[in-house]
Amino acid sequence: MKKIINDPTTVVTEALKGVALAHADLVTVHHDPDFITRADGPIQGKVAIVSGGGSGHEPLAGGYVGPGGLDAAVPGAVFTSPTPDQILAATQAADGGAGVVHLVLNYTGDILNFETAAELADAEDINVQAVVIDDDVAVKDSTWTAGRRGVGGAIPWYKITCAAAARGDDLDAVVAISKRVVANVRTMGMALTPCTVPHSGEPSFTLAEDEMEIGIGVHGEPGRERTKLTSANEIVATLLGSVVEDLPFERGDNTLLFVNGMGGTPSIELYLAYNAAREFLAERGIEVTRSLVGNYFTSLEMQGMSISLLKLDDELTELWDAPINTAAMRRGV
Amino acid sequence: MKKIINDPTTVVTEALKGVALAHADLVTVHHDPDFITRADGPIQGKVAIVSGGGSGHEPLAGGYVGPGGLDAAVPGAVFTSPTPDQILAATQAADGGAGVVHLVLNYTGDILNFETAAELADAEDINVQAVVIDDDVAVKDSTWTAGRRGVGGAIPWYKITCAAAARGDDLDAVVAISKRVVANVRTMGMALTPCTVPHSGEPSFTLAEDEMEIGIGVHGEPGRERTKLTSANEIVATLLGSVVEDLPFERGDNTLLFVNGMGGTPSIELYLAYNAAREFLAERGIEVTRSLVGNYFTSLEMQGMSISLLKLDDELTELWDAPINTAAMRRGV
Repeated sequence: MKKIINDPTTVVTEALKGVALAHADLVTVHHDPDFITRADGPIQGKVAIVSGGGSGHEPLAGGYVGPGGLDAAVPGAVFTSPTPDQILAATQAADGGAGVVHLVLNYTGDILNFETAAELADAEDINVQAVVIDDDVAVKDSTWTAGRRGVGGAIPWYKITCAAAARGDDLDAVVAISKRVVANVRTMGMALTPCTVPHSGEPSFTLAEDEMEIGIGVHGEPGRERTKLTSANEIVATLLGSVVEDLPFERGDNTLLFVNGMGGTPSIELYLAYNAAREFLAERGIEVTRSLVGNYFTSLEMQGMSISLLKLDDELTELWDAPINTAAMRRGV
Repeated sequence: MKKIINDPTTVVTEALKGVALAHADLVTVHHDPDFITRADGPIQGKVAIVSGGGSGHEPLAGGYVGPGGLDAAVPGAVFTSPTPDQILAATQAADGGAGVVHLVLNYTGDILNFETAAELADAEDINVQAVVIDDDVAVKDSTWTAGRRGVGGAIPWYKITCAAAARGDDLDAVVAISKRVVANVRTMGMALTPCTVPHSGEPSFTLAEDEMEIGIGVHGEPGRERTKLTSANEIVATLLGSVVEDLPFERGDNTLLFVNGMGGTPSIELYLAYNAAREFLAERGIEVTRSLVGNYFTSLEMQGMSISLLKLDDELTELWDAPINTAAMRRGV
């Protein structure tokens, strides 16, 4: 296992200490239980947004904590759901009296633990509503989920949901916007290489030198099929073909196109794929007016990418464009 | 070779098309010859800042083009210096009548081609001054350079030099600030894995499963030594030990600490290393008041990192904090 670490059991703790030191202006890192809050929070009277999940997907979710972003993020162990007590503590710390939205990616452990935390918070008179994202069109059920997985669509979903809360929407309104993003975003990913969880020490799967996994999950869990490596144009056509026909996206639709790196993919390949995706969509008359390209939701050092497409309307566009000031995403502040 | 590409010979061209489409609000991509300019440039009366080098180091340099950043960037083929005609065209396009600064990383091909371009620009009455960075303490000369290599220190150097130009400094003043950064920044890197240049198709070197290369160059060229993989704390001590004793940095110094990923390193490892670096510096009484952690100067998919330390004064700090709005770095705008 080739990693820049000291001890597989302390990777997350040490990384969180680094986050606290590097971004003290933006976030406060709490320990025992571990969670991350806005340095200037809680914001009284604002709906608070809390998300989280296993570590190893950085900058998800802590990198999106800050003004215009999440109020709190809860990191589990690598590829392991955070515990209910972590989520409860983050929820309590983020609450500004206007209710809390839990943004939950659809993985069985996360669903259960966020539900438990919401019940515990409710017993303390914190009004929590959960929204679940399941944007991965690759598989119906999976080794980690009942139903579809929550994947790259989480990034625009975070951004837009948090912007609705930041502009002062009440709890029901924030939840409605958040669900509108879920209803309009679809994603599919692929991988060229596996990744290695530190405490396991071995790659989560193997791929031959000429193979790729289409529809890969963000923990390296199986996708649709293992095939021979093809060209970027063919890969993009496979991913976006499935994405476009699923919603479906149609001629004349106005969209946000997001090419996400899995952690180990060079930027030059992501922009090349983005170009191929634009050509694919242009041929189908699907317009792209907003874009995101980069490593925003990763799987440790995995090489690969996912492509997300979000159907935009004027309000979603305005919320996407709204200011945000976080470690992983800054705009207009 | 596992890459998301169509044709090894068109990787840079296709990626540049992607950049143009994804960042049309920030940059304009020119072809034949290839270079990138600010979408709102040239800025009349402002000293223009132009940099560049081989592709494969993204987001260097095109990702730093925009308000508060570079006026133009010139991408060569992967790991290959841009040609004089590319650099000349970028210089002409960026010139706002107040002179042009060429920010050149110390590699033999870049030095020669930027010099030739500067002479050609001079013949057209464009006043060009070059500043060269050679911040890598790992080796004295190398396979790619006479003298030290220009590496991670380029990122704060870009930021601060461009901020001096943005606030209205004249050509001599911008050059003086730029040289002050060069005089006060030092860097050393290491790699766990090699990278593969697309048109070569083979890794640039090999490392055994338990080996790392200390003092690696950004093209995978040899560093100081190949050793057994050690802990993050030991790696950080090796890199920062060399960095600190070189300038030297001393007890009471105020610094910017930059942990840079080589492209394939997970964010969680970079933050863990950043934490180790902070402990190393704290033990020596070296203060860190500004930080940067991430993949800002990469070597394709190489796994590894470099650590840069810049001695700050009030003016350099103010210029580091000044607004910038580029694809790879946004702050305060």
